[in-house]
Amino acid sequence: MSEKKVKIGITHGDINGIGYEVILKTFADDRILDFCIPIIYGSGKIAAYHRKALDLKSANMNVINHASEALPNKVNVINCVDEELKVEYGKVSKEAGRAAFLALERASEDLDNKSIDTLLTAPINKYSIQGNDFDFPGHTEYLEHRHGNGQKALMILTSDDLRVALVTGHMPLSEISSTLSTETILEKLLIFNQSLKVDFCISAPRIAVLSLNPHAGEEGLLGTEERDIISPAMAAADKKGILCFGPFAADGFFGSGAFSRFDGVLAMYHDQGLIPFKTMVMGNGVNFTAGLPIIRTSPDHGTACDIAGQNKASEKSFRNALYLGIDIFRNRNFYQVSVENPLKRQYYDRGGDNERLDLTKEDA
Amino acid sequence: MSEKKVKIGITHGDINGIGYEVILKTFADDRILDFCIPIIYGSGKIAAYHRKALDLKSANMNVINHASEALPNKVNVINCVDEELKVEYGKVSKEAGRAAFLALERASEDLDNKSIDTLLTAPINKYSIQGNDFDFPGHTEYLEHRHGNGQKALMILTSDDLRVALVTGHMPLSEISSTLSTETILEKLLIFNQSLKVDFCISAPRIAVLSLNPHAGEEGLLGTEERDIISPAMAAADKKGILCFGPFAADGFFGSGAFSRFDGVLAMYHDQGLIPFKTMVMGNGVNFTAGLPIIRTSPDHGTACDIAGQNKASEKSFRNALYLGIDIFRNRNFYQVSVENPLKRQYYDRGGDNERLDLTKEDA
Repeated sequence: MSEKKVKIGITHGDINGIGYEVILKTFADDRILDFCIPIIYGSGKIAAYHRKALDLKSANMNVINHASEALPNKVNVINCVDEELKVEYGKVSKEAGRAAFLALERASEDLDNKSIDTLLTAPINKYSIQGNDFDFPGHTEYLEHRHGNGQKALMILTSDDLRVALVTGHMPLSEISSTLSTETILEKLLIFNQSLKVDFCISAPRIAVLSLNPHAGEEGLLGTEERDIISPAMAAADKKGILCFGPFAADGFFGSGAFSRFDGVLAMYHDQGLIPFKTMVMGNGVNFTAGLPIIRTSPDHGTACDIAGQNKASEKSFRNALYLGIDIFRNRNFYQVSVENPLKRQYYDRGGDNERLDLTKEDA
Repeated sequence: MSEKKVKIGITHGDINGIGYEVILKTFADDRILDFCIPIIYGSGKIAAYHRKALDLKSANMNVINHASEALPNKVNVINCVDEELKVEYGKVSKEAGRAAFLALERASEDLDNKSIDTLLTAPINKYSIQGNDFDFPGHTEYLEHRHGNGQKALMILTSDDLRVALVTGHMPLSEISSTLSTETILEKLLIFNQSLKVDFCISAPRIAVLSLNPHAGEEGLLGTEERDIISPAMAAADKKGILCFGPFAADGFFGSGAFSRFDGVLAMYHDQGLIPFKTMVMGNGVNFTAGLPIIRTSPDHGTACDIAGQNKASEKSFRNALYLGIDIFRNRNFYQVSVENPLKRQYYDRGGDNERLDLTKEDA
């Protein structure tokens, strides 16, 4: 496993939000360039505008035409957008949405042709980016469609040792129960388990599964999904060797600290996972898109248009997302190297009187 | 307002759980008797059994037959149960359920005839207490039925300055959306507002209302209840002079600390309110049953049969529940005294040439 610097593609997101602010603040300390070669998909001109407007420390910028030209110890920038584009802090505009899309599209191409190792996305505005080329609720669905080759993505929120994944995502609360199925939960458990092993280097991950209903359904009095849907999925996962536990009532699970005994927590719906996650670690969390051949991380905040241009944003979550992307890239390589050439099991005839290792046959 | 000691009725709950442990630990420090006259509805014999089994400090017990005989500076006990009843730690038994019910029933009578000022309930087992006389999901519903005179109860979880109330309680997640209505939310807002004023002495309470769907429904993309049900209820409440704000997306609301800017938070369903509440203050919280003529508080934990008899339980939440009961009793009296004799507005004829205060007429 080589400890070469990881090439990390960074999309600028919505130019009217806090994207450039957190990017520039992250690279204001250039020691971070010891770990990675950043390539910003955006605009050198707009980056300079933000730097001046926010009076930020100058980063060592290097405008390039292609990722292959990226220099180490520089913050490389590929221009992806119209030179005339103007920043209007806090404004939701079609132009900014288009610019966010163009950067994402260009970075996606470079992921495909392996010019970059991982993707780190600054937040987009979910409305303004919509268009003929982009018809998805967010990054996760776009990347699943673009890079999944049929594989499903899983959203994992992480912070230190807390990893929360969601079975269902952005949907009305009234539709959650009918969307849940034993198959979906099993599928998410398999992806989660694999990601914890490969991406987080946990050889036998322990996964806690949350219940859908209050008090874990209280033996069917407060709902039957625990018995009819969740438990069968866990039983099926158990047969496949996955260490899953629960279903646990979600309220006491976090307050009691029980979550700290597990490597991952599978929540049934958005708010069930995100309420405790944000309550505990808001501002430090990272969103990781698991289950895909590519690696993508992002901070746990949005465009934050209410504080855009005010030099109030914290780059902590963005920096954590950068570190996590590097870690996962290295972990995946390490896992691949460690399993690619296993010793073969040899056939050993235990039946005969004359027991001997027969090296010409392989065990079934 | 007299600062007399508050007579606080305490029901022993499930005798096989941690009820007596937290009661005895609370009164191990007898300075608490400076504030209140406790009357335990239970059994002196069983209390003594727990004290010995757990090797707890002896409290100054006084067995009485009726609340009117309660002495100050003593922990008074009224025997409500069969003398032969035995403690079996951690066991769910019909006998323990019956004993829990008998204590609750006796305390309820004394609330009716004003022999006690407030009620503090140790946790019950929700199954074993069920019977011909008790067919309710829990204390709250029983007390609403027994003391409500048609008034509705509202469950409020409190800890210091955090107060979370629930629109819907113990029900399957799939039924929440269809149960919510503009009328229910408005009703809960009115009770919550009144309780914050009367019970918590907040003259103009600010109430935050949480959304049902993720991202507050994202303008209808992720659900329409915010627009069709919650917002109309808030508009109606606003017309009645209630200061309510939102609906807020529930995940960021707690993580960002926004909750600290409000006197109360109205959650749409059980886990939405209890996940962040327990995540933040588990072990310190108090459950208060608002909206009824009587006052009832309880700790935020259950019978905890897994640690019963092991001297591991913390009495913190129980002690907080005791203090809150005393506070609310005093606050209600204070409120009543302060509004019972308001100055009447006087009629002032502004139309005439000869403006004069006419004390013989009242303003409309």
